[in-house]
Amino acid sequence: MKKDKIMRTVRCRNDQNRGTLGRLVTAIAERDGDIGEIHVIQETHRAVIRDITVYADDLAQMEQIIAAMAANPGTQIIAIRDEVLELHQKGKIAIRSRYTIDSLAILRRVYTPGVAEVCLKIAEDPTLARQYTAISHLIAIVTDGTAVLGLGDIGPVAGMPVMEGKAMLMETLVGLSGVPVLLDSKDVVTIVETVATIAPTFGAIQLEDIAAPRCFEIEERLIERLDIPVMHDDQHGTAVVTTAALTNIARQLELDLGKVRIGQIGLGAAGNAVGRMLMELTGNPVLGADLSEGALERFRGAGGQPASLLELMAQADIVIATTGAPGLIKPEWVRPGQVILALSNPVPEIEPDLALEAGAAFAADGKSVNNVLGFPGILRGAVDCDARRISREMYLAAAQAIAEATPEGELLPNPLDKAVHRSVARQVARKAIQQGLARSDLVPYLED
Amino acid sequence: MKKDKIMRTVRCRNDQNRGTLGRLVTAIAERDGDIGEIHVIQETHRAVIRDITVYADDLAQMEQIIAAMAANPGTQIIAIRDEVLELHQKGKIAIRSRYTIDSLAILRRVYTPGVAEVCLKIAEDPTLARQYTAISHLIAIVTDGTAVLGLGDIGPVAGMPVMEGKAMLMETLVGLSGVPVLLDSKDVVTIVETVATIAPTFGAIQLEDIAAPRCFEIEERLIERLDIPVMHDDQHGTAVVTTAALTNIARQLELDLGKVRIGQIGLGAAGNAVGRMLMELTGNPVLGADLSEGALERFRGAGGQPASLLELMAQADIVIATTGAPGLIKPEWVRPGQVILALSNPVPEIEPDLALEAGAAFAADGKSVNNVLGFPGILRGAVDCDARRISREMYLAAAQAIAEATPEGELLPNPLDKAVHRSVARQVARKAIQQGLARSDLVPYLED
Repeated sequence: MKKDKIMRTVRCRNDQNRGTLGRLVTAIAERDGDIGEIHVIQETHRAVIRDITVYADDLAQMEQIIAAMAANPGTQIIAIRDEVLELHQKGKIAIRSRYTIDSLAILRRVYTPGVAEVCLKIAEDPTLARQYTAISHLIAIVTDGTAVLGLGDIGPVAGMPVMEGKAMLMETLVGLSGVPVLLDSKDVVTIVETVATIAPTFGAIQLEDIAAPRCFEIEERLIERLDIPVMHDDQHGTAVVTTAALTNIARQLELDLGKVRIGQIGLGAAGNAVGRMLMELTGNPVLGADLSEGALERFRGAGGQPASLLELMAQADIVIATTGAPGLIKPEWVRPGQVILALSNPVPEIEPDLALEAGAAFAADGKSVNNVLGFPGILRGAVDCDARRISREMYLAAAQAIAEATPEGELLPNPLDKAVHRSVARQVARKAIQQGLARSDLVPYLED
Repeated sequence: MKKDKIMRTVRCRNDQNRGTLGRLVTAIAERDGDIGEIHVIQETHRAVIRDITVYADDLAQMEQIIAAMAANPGTQIIAIRDEVLELHQKGKIAIRSRYTIDSLAILRRVYTPGVAEVCLKIAEDPTLARQYTAISHLIAIVTDGTAVLGLGDIGPVAGMPVMEGKAMLMETLVGLSGVPVLLDSKDVVTIVETVATIAPTFGAIQLEDIAAPRCFEIEERLIERLDIPVMHDDQHGTAVVTTAALTNIARQLELDLGKVRIGQIGLGAAGNAVGRMLMELTGNPVLGADLSEGALERFRGAGGQPASLLELMAQADIVIATTGAPGLIKPEWVRPGQVILALSNPVPEIEPDLALEAGAAFAADGKSVNNVLGFPGILRGAVDCDARRISREMYLAAAQAIAEATPEGELLPNPLDKAVHRSVARQVARKAIQQGLARSDLVPYLED
């Protein structure tokens, strides 16, 4: 079971002897290390210097791998760098001015006295704020730090590197400005009041890494209270991308999603949303398994059909698992021809190769079903047309756009392909306009 | 009384006849228009095309000026541009990534799975957040929109262009990331709770354009509750820059600030803080005038000496006015040799030239005493040394740094001179370290 939690860049000097690199790579693999990029830094007639990115599950394993590398005949380790930490020095985001203030003339235009006229215009007609301020492009990325990645309740400050990562992706992929908001509270009422009070600052609110079941109530209350899009990514982002992946799998396996049984194991934030979206898509009930009675009741209320883990495995043609429980699904439970998406990170409920060995027709883990495909385009589409909220149909339109943008034979598109995000944004906005949820009827336009 | 609220850039084609430009400038001046930059855009043997920036008090006056320009023999108006609005299109700030995400390799370092190790490190030792996140450089610029510029209670959204302007200045002058936070509440308790709840996101809190007397209680409560710097700029920024200006005036006029009488007219956010800081500096009580009994009581509680407007004008050697009341000070009240700083924007309590005509030894208005000199360096100094709060002594150190950085014969330094802001930051941090208020004992270093 690979967890790939630790990453180091090891600079090695290898003698120019045939086989040195081969032995080095083998030494890493024998200690269960994974290899990422290998870059040649310098080459002489006597030696090649390379940067090799090595992944391990923990520090102890990383030390063993590096010791094995150092022991390889012909290899000399020059440096070991923690590039992840280096990249995080001083954080990964910054607020930048869109103009350089290098003269009093420009200062007078962007600050006092010039700014007063702009303020007065907006005071007279608040809709002008969309045009003359950054508000419509500012997205709050709100967390209480209670469900960060697979790490659990590590607190909002420790979650900041993830929020900064989301902000980077929003800027890179769709040109939005993500603003992390770390909440010093886990109380539903306090969180709702706080976010509602600062909401005028933003074009949309993305809730992030907030644990179930609080996340449901927080999202519902904020949607009811605010007239800007509010989206809990761990719910709807995951549901959109999973639905897109399933659409592609069904096409490739020639399955009719409307005729197969779908089962969802784990009914937390992600699982509940995935199950609900698949019921909307297919019109059929989805089987749902969870240890929590509350989660089962919530799912039943949404039209789902509670089942035990073994019942679900025995009955479902498509199994999706989002439990956070490593290795939960035993290979002997897998039925021939089943589709299994074991999405928990960093360790899935069953490794895809084990599931395939056990007879599954298709299997993938969470690394293959990346949320990054969803939230940037969904939010960009929603704010571009000034949507009041994000409807279920808008989420389904996003899933369809992702499925359509997937290269033949692939599960999902490359998450860094900007054309995919542009297509998601356009489809989401078109659906909002169609449904009368948009306050602007401009079809959004995204620059390359 | 110039208000300079409206600014237009007028592109003119002038025949190549001697005197055309002179007549044009005269025509603008005769309609009480002010002229900013004049740029030559194109010159041929027959004509010169120039962009002329024109300031007026209101749209009606601007129309008259432009009509007069068009009527000038030899002048043809080609275009009239509202550059202020053009610069505000889509807002003035954006969140930017500090690295380009252009490969899955970098994605794995700044986002999952790499980011997990950074999160865990911070969860184990929260002080590492200063090193591996943007938190210590993120400054909340918080407003409820109740006292924006001289415009009053125009609401937080209409105040956004000012908040974006402040963020631009923070980035340009000291490399901080200012994050506007617009509050949908005017209630003291709601504002304090909201700001305290989102405080983990930020290295410091700047309160901005919040009306008195609520601003005092909000700042006090937040200072008490949070262990990061909280600064209401309209109070302390103004006090710091005014104190620096007075220090320079006193040096030039060879006045001993400890021996003259100082009077403060208007005891709102700015005036109360100016008066208090001058009492701390001189050790003597300052005369204070205000129409509000509450403001007078507050000032008395701080050691000030309430007086009527006329008493104050009759007794004070140095008069500072921050009332927001245009033309409040009559020329006949000015005593020979008085120093008068009439700081209200956009229209001062008395025009400097009127005050000088009436016998003042020195007179200036708010345009000459710019807050921009204060807040960037104060905040940078405070967050660099990880100060728990900003003490009165730190504010005084900032005032002294500004005074020392002023070129001979000037009232204050150029607000865009980065060397001034670096000096303020260093002096503020040194004072914090000296007072034991800094959690880091590094003397801050600001790059050019």
